[in-house]
Order: sequence, then C-alpha cells, then structure tokens
Amino acid sequence: MSLIVICSVAFDTLETPHGRRERILGGSGTYCSLAASFFTEPKLVAVVGEDFPEDAIELFKSRGIDVQGLKIQSGKTFHWEARYGDDPNQRTTIKTELNVFGDFRPQLPQDYREADIVFLANIDPDVHEDILSQVKSPKLVAMDTINFWIKTKPDPLLKVLEKVHVYFGNDEEIKTLAREPNLVRAGKKLLERGPSFIVIKKGEHGALVLGKDSVFGVLAYPCEKVIDPTGAGDSFAGGFLGYLDKIKAFDKEEEIRKASVYGSVMASFTIEDFGISRLKSLRLEDIEKRFSQFKKLVSF
Amino acid sequence: MSLIVICSVAFDTLETPHGRRERILGGSGTYCSLAASFFTEPKLVAVVGEDFPEDAIELFKSRGIDVQGLKIQSGKTFHWEARYGDDPNQRTTIKTELNVFGDFRPQLPQDYREADIVFLANIDPDVHEDILSQVKSPKLVAMDTINFWIKTKPDPLLKVLEKVHVYFGNDEEIKTLAREPNLVRAGKKLLERGPSFIVIKKGEHGALVLGKDSVFGVLAYPCEKVIDPTGAGDSFAGGFLGYLDKIKAFDKEEEIRKASVYGSVMASFTIEDFGISRLKSLRLEDIEKRFSQFKKLVSF
Repeated sequence: MSLIVICSVAFDTLETPHGRRERILGGSGTYCSLAASFFTEPKLVAVVGEDFPEDAIELFKSRGIDVQGLKIQSGKTFHWEARYGDDPNQRTTIKTELNVFGDFRPQLPQDYREADIVFLANIDPDVHEDILSQVKSPKLVAMDTINFWIKTKPDPLLKVLEKVHVYFGNDEEIKTLAREPNLVRAGKKLLERGPSFIVIKKGEHGALVLGKDSVFGVLAYPCEKVIDPTGAGDSFAGGFLGYLDKIKAFDKEEEIRKASVYGSVMASFTIEDFGISRLKSLRLEDIEKRFSQFKKLVSF
Repeated sequence: MSLIVICSVAFDTLETPHGRRERILGGSGTYCSLAASFFTEPKLVAVVGEDFPEDAIELFKSRGIDVQGLKIQSGKTFHWEARYGDDPNQRTTIKTELNVFGDFRPQLPQDYREADIVFLANIDPDVHEDILSQVKSPKLVAMDTINFWIKTKPDPLLKVLEKVHVYFGNDEEIKTLAREPNLVRAGKKLLERGPSFIVIKKGEHGALVLGKDSVFGVLAYPCEKVIDPTGAGDSFAGGFLGYLDKIKAFDKEEEIRKASVYGSVMASFTIEDFGISRLKSLRLEDIEKRFSQFKKLVSF
C-alpha cells in the first residue's frame, strides 16, 4: 500500500509581479508530496545535493512524508530560475541547472516496491520504464511529463503510456503528444493508447478529465490573489493521488471526480503565496471548506 | 414585456480549417436573436442594406422574431471577413465593411419601448445612451462591447455601465476596461461601477459569472467538432437573456446560474457548423438534453 512520488526536489529562484525569492525549496516532488501529505503518507523518491538543508528534510518528515527514497548525492541540488509576467501563464525560464538531477536513476527502497500508486513525474521516459519494473504490482500508475520529452522522445513516452492509468498533461502537451489540434479528440486519442483517464490541466481555467465513457470538468478556484503560480500542477497531482490513496479507490469514476476537485483545491492554495509557504500553513479544515466552495461554484 | 436585441445583422465571409463560406448570414443580432428565439419572442433592432435577402427576413419571422425594428436602408449590408487558425481563438479579421451599419442610430418601434430586457451589443457607447432613453422602464439592461470601444471610448462606456445590470465581456476586455490584470479583481471592480452581474466569457474555457456576493462558473461543452466559432458569444447572450425573459426573472442568482448554462449550451451548438446552420436545425429537446449533460459534466 501507499503512494510513491518520483519527482524532482529543487531550489527555485522566482520572480513574479509580487516579488522575488532566491533559492527557495521547490521541485515537482516537493509540491506533490506536500499536497498529498494532507490525505496520506507519501513516499518521496528524488535526489538532492550536499547543499540541501536539513530543515527541508525535517519539514518533509513533519508532514509524514517518507524520505527513505530521498538520496543525497555529492554535488549540487537542481536549481531552476523563472520569471512570471502579469499574466500567470507568461513564464520565462531563465536558468535550468540540473546538477545531481541530471543523471537521476532511482533505486526504490525495498518497502516502496509494494506501492499501490506510483506517480512518475517529469523524468526521462526511459527511466520511467526502469522504475515501473521495480514496483511489484501497482494498482494505479500516474504520469506527468513536459513538452521537452514529448518533442524529443515521443515514442518511448507513448510506450510508457500503455502502462499508465492516469495521465496528467496541460492542453498544449496533450495536443502535441496526440498530434491533434482539437483538445477533446486529442485526449480521446491518448485514451486509446492505454490510460483510463486523461487529466487535462488548463491552469486558471481548471481541468478536464476524460475517461473511456465520461467527461468531467473542474474549475480552477477564482483566485483574487495569485502570488506565485509555481507548483500548481504538481499540487493538483498531489491532491488528486493523495485522495485516491487515502480512500483506496483506483478506477471508480465518481472518486476520480472528487480527486480532481481535491487536486484543484490544493493548486488553488499553492498559488496564494510564494513556493510552498501556503501549503506549510494550511489546515485540513481549509481544504474541506474550499472543497465545499467548489460545489457551490458550479451548482445550478 | 419581452426582450429587445440591438445588434448588427451582417454578411460574414469565413474561413476555418473546415472550409470557407462566402457572405453567409451573420452578425451579433442574428446569432443572439436566433438563440433567444428558443426561449422567447425577441424583438430585433438592426439595419441592413437593400442587398439583404428576403429569405433571411423570412427565417427570422419563422422563428418568431419580431423584425419591425429591422430597418432596410439604401446601401449595402455590413460585411465582415475573417479567418480562423487551428486554434479557434486565433482569429484574423480580414475585412470590415460597415456600410449602412456605420451610422446606425436606432429608433425603436413604439411597442419595443415597453421591453423588460434590453440587450445593447457592440455599438458606439454614445448610441447606447440614446437607446436607453427610448425604453420606458426596462427591468434588465445587458451590454456587450468590444476592445475597440473600450480603447477609444472608455469613459462613455463606463458611464453606460452605471445603467447596466448584466455586462458580458471576454477576459481580455474585462481586464482592459477595469485596468486590472487579475480577472476576478477586474470583474469585481466593474461590479462597483453599477452592474449586478459580470459575465466573463472565456471561449472554450466557459464563463465566470460574478455577482455582488457570488461566483458561478460554467464550462464550455467539450466539443469534438468545432467547425466555426463565429457567433458563440452572441449565442451565449441569446440563450442567457432568452431564458431570463421566458421565466421573467431579472436578478435572482439561481436563475442567472441557469441562464448562464443555457448560454453555454446555445454557444456549444452554434460552433458545431458554419454560421447559423446548427441553430436552424436545432430542436428544443436537443437544448434540454445538453442542459442535462452540463449538470453531469460538473457533478461530484
């Protein structure tokens, strides 16, 4: 049982219209596991350098995150620098220093290999295959990727997709991978490649979840205060998968719907402050309150 | 009682990835009144040239649309030419020949002046004032406009806004008019200028409806077949206002929510074929069926 999250843990330097933060804790694994930690006890798989601070590891532990799979390697931690415009979708990457993340080839600790849910985030598709071979009999494999891998390694990626149950992608990525300009048709084409659900993340416009015979739409929470959009998508995945792991549901459509709303709820909190600040101060009752507000938001 | 629609009636020449159509019936008034005609008997106010075909007028009449306010003037009908890319949001206007629409100064027929609902579409804001002075005691004034007027006549526009109950705009227009980059805050700023509801149209991402103490989100129907996006926004307004006129509700939040869904339903049909083709073949049961599908789409 449990959820393993194979992602990056990084330092982020971020500039938004609301300020600048230097080398704060970031990376998809950080956002995803913190968001999931409100629902379950995720197991993190990532690599950091010797410069990675002890208090960040303590933070993970304090949230019940298993860090056995967090490898500390000689060298520096992955560092990413980006700037956002007035429109949160306008993001410019200024620097990507992969450092120890560059040749990350995860070896899963023994008790991670029994996981129910495996989340493969933005890593080389060839590494995805290797990780999956280490997990005994996962009930749900989820994957997220980025345009870089879609463009450079589409074939290995489509091959991994055959083993994936839930695929997360943004609208651009889904269209590119499916080679189809209509978003719904693109999602349906990817469903034919294996996954049971395609979760199309649309940023401030929410997400569309396509199943074999179902369509579900979840809005993004209408935020008046978007301080830093970093980590929204990873928080979505964390809320989504954390919820499914908590209730031990792996393919029920009604639970996938709720999981999507929890995903959108977690993303809506993350963007309210820089980095993981809002996730750190968050309480379970804030999450449940916003979940109810999502119901009200779409009821007619 | 009843709904008056003050809009353009035009010929459109359209090119989309699915084909090209020359000088087909279009204009905001055409889409809006046809969409509204499934709910009520709208009264059209527009101007066309001597080249306007009799069968188009017959079509309006056959749908129960009052055409007393459709003035035929010496000269040519408004002609607009546009091209869409693979992404339906990529629209290039190729030609705008205003012709008789250029100096459109509507005089409302006597029985139009008793209207409950007035829809002021994309016309010079100074003309809006003049029209409103002709209507006795409207219960709901709705307005839509375009970036051209927002940029060239923001002050007269904001003045009209004081008399408007429902303002329709796309996300870009709302942000520009409010001079605020955050969409939700922009909408709230406009609410302070008079309207009870701001309907933010987001194309394929649906719409956000902001009230003084409420937020409602409606999705766009996930269409696999977007043949021609022209008229989606006007069909939304037609469905929205037609429904409110039918049930004689003018400010109840729960009815505004349903009206928004009917708006999105009508828009979703319009884009399934070129011009008004889909609206012509549409039946009431298609509308009700899709309304139910919208419920299913967001339920969790």
